Amino acid sequence: MLIIGELINSSRKAIKEALEKRDAEYIRQIAKDQVAAGADYVDVNCGTMANEVESMAWLVNTIQEAVEAPLCIDSPNPQAIAAGLALCKFGQPMLNSISDEKERFNTILPLVVKFKTKIVALCMDDTGMPNTAKDRMKVVKSLYAKLTEAGVPENDIYFDPLVKPISAVASAGLEVLETIRAVKKMYPNVHMTCGLSNISYGLPNRNYLNRMFVTQTNTVGMDSYILNPTDKGMMGNIYASQALLGQDSYCMNYLTAYRKGLYE
Amino acid sequence: MLIIGELINSSRKAIKEALEKRDAEYIRQIAKDQVAAGADYVDVNCGTMANEVESMAWLVNTIQEAVEAPLCIDSPNPQAIAAGLALCKFGQPMLNSISDEKERFNTILPLVVKFKTKIVALCMDDTGMPNTAKDRMKVVKSLYAKLTEAGVPENDIYFDPLVKPISAVASAGLEVLETIRAVKKMYPNVHMTCGLSNISYGLPNRNYLNRMFVTQTNTVGMDSYILNPTDKGMMGNIYASQALLGQDSYCMNYLTAYRKGLYE
Repeated sequence: MLIIGELINSSRKAIKEALEKRDAEYIRQIAKDQVAAGADYVDVNCGTMANEVESMAWLVNTIQEAVEAPLCIDSPNPQAIAAGLALCKFGQPMLNSISDEKERFNTILPLVVKFKTKIVALCMDDTGMPNTAKDRMKVVKSLYAKLTEAGVPENDIYFDPLVKPISAVASAGLEVLETIRAVKKMYPNVHMTCGLSNISYGLPNRNYLNRMFVTQTNTVGMDSYILNPTDKGMMGNIYASQALLGQDSYCMNYLTAYRKGLYE
Repeated sequence: MLIIGELINSSRKAIKEALEKRDAEYIRQIAKDQVAAGADYVDVNCGTMANEVESMAWLVNTIQEAVEAPLCIDSPNPQAIAAGLALCKFGQPMLNSISDEKERFNTILPLVVKFKTKIVALCMDDTGMPNTAKDRMKVVKSLYAKLTEAGVPENDIYFDPLVKPISAVASAGLEVLETIRAVKKMYPNVHMTCGLSNISYGLPNRNYLNRMFVTQTNTVGMDSYILNPTDKGMMGNIYASQALLGQDSYCMNYLTAYRKGLYE
């Protein structure tokens, strides 16, 4: 299980303000909180800032003053990604994200190869957002072939099926589950990740549905999430799911989570 | 989804006392509560009573004064089962349970055939409780062959994989999930049911794990549970799981459950 902490994102008001004021103390605290709560990677996204390249460099340096966790450099902008990756000091960085859109693929791939990153690969191409599992698998096969041909190890690839709301299309969750099953069957050594919150868009009690969708996707093979690790209930959910799936020896992580009050 | 309400069971102290006093009012209320909460079937178990046959007859009549739901006659004792089934008035009754233990199979099968019941079929034979999915599938194949040969429709068969604690064997949950996948692949028209609470035996926060195991098993194809339907969180969990799996048009059941306060 690989948890990517999503909180350092300039689309969040508090982060945008901290970036505008260059409030290093606040950014460092958010980074520390996420790692303390169980994040394996810290996502870094400043895509809404006018000076994204400069903001990315400042964020990466600031975060690494606080934690020694590897970073997930998150942008569609090759300049911002290059600036961020060049400064990463701890462990193998992650790049979020490539897709099978022609221009994006061609500009991002050289960065994946140069910096030997883990790569989040979106199931999307120039025909737009996918609907069915079949649409997604078409993109998965194409991206798998091109990425491995370029020398990217299978173990570094994290396919993101792109989650859409069940309130709009009832089968939206099912198509994601089918995609996970199909990917793990065809390419057992690659990974699957996603952001969750779209699944519950337009419905009440969203966090409950988001947590349940973690359990469902984890059950069929998803092994990474981009989420808020300081959400105790969400992390508790992940530890319990892993225990039930036999991936937690002697239920030690579950019992630790219980003692830490993650199920209160 | 077929929910079997488990509360009328003489192993529960309050039910035992009500049975001893022939407290019809109490039994009727428990039956009504379960049906109001969403139970499709009401389980009837008085296996711990000395006079099981007589108790079964009284229970079946008493419950049917209160609700018109079909009943699930739950006993290993052919006399008690026959007494209960003979009195069932509403819809197709269910029999809980047959197994592939030779004596049990031979004494229970004639009752399944005579009363045209739905049948809970335990994945157990004379070699004892199963450990692996492979053990369970051996029993499933044998029971499937014998039951269908005797004329039992596939749609009336509910295999129970028998759930064991993850605290004892880490893979206990995984083996159940593998069994569900294998059964649904081999026999797509049969059903799967289980009681849940064993999964969390020996661990803290058991209800949380039980609910999560409902989500996991439902995700891979289990479509019936023997549980306490007045546990609001558990029923809310089932409605949410169904919505995420695309089995709840326009999320209507989920939204109704939300308005009823099942997620508070």
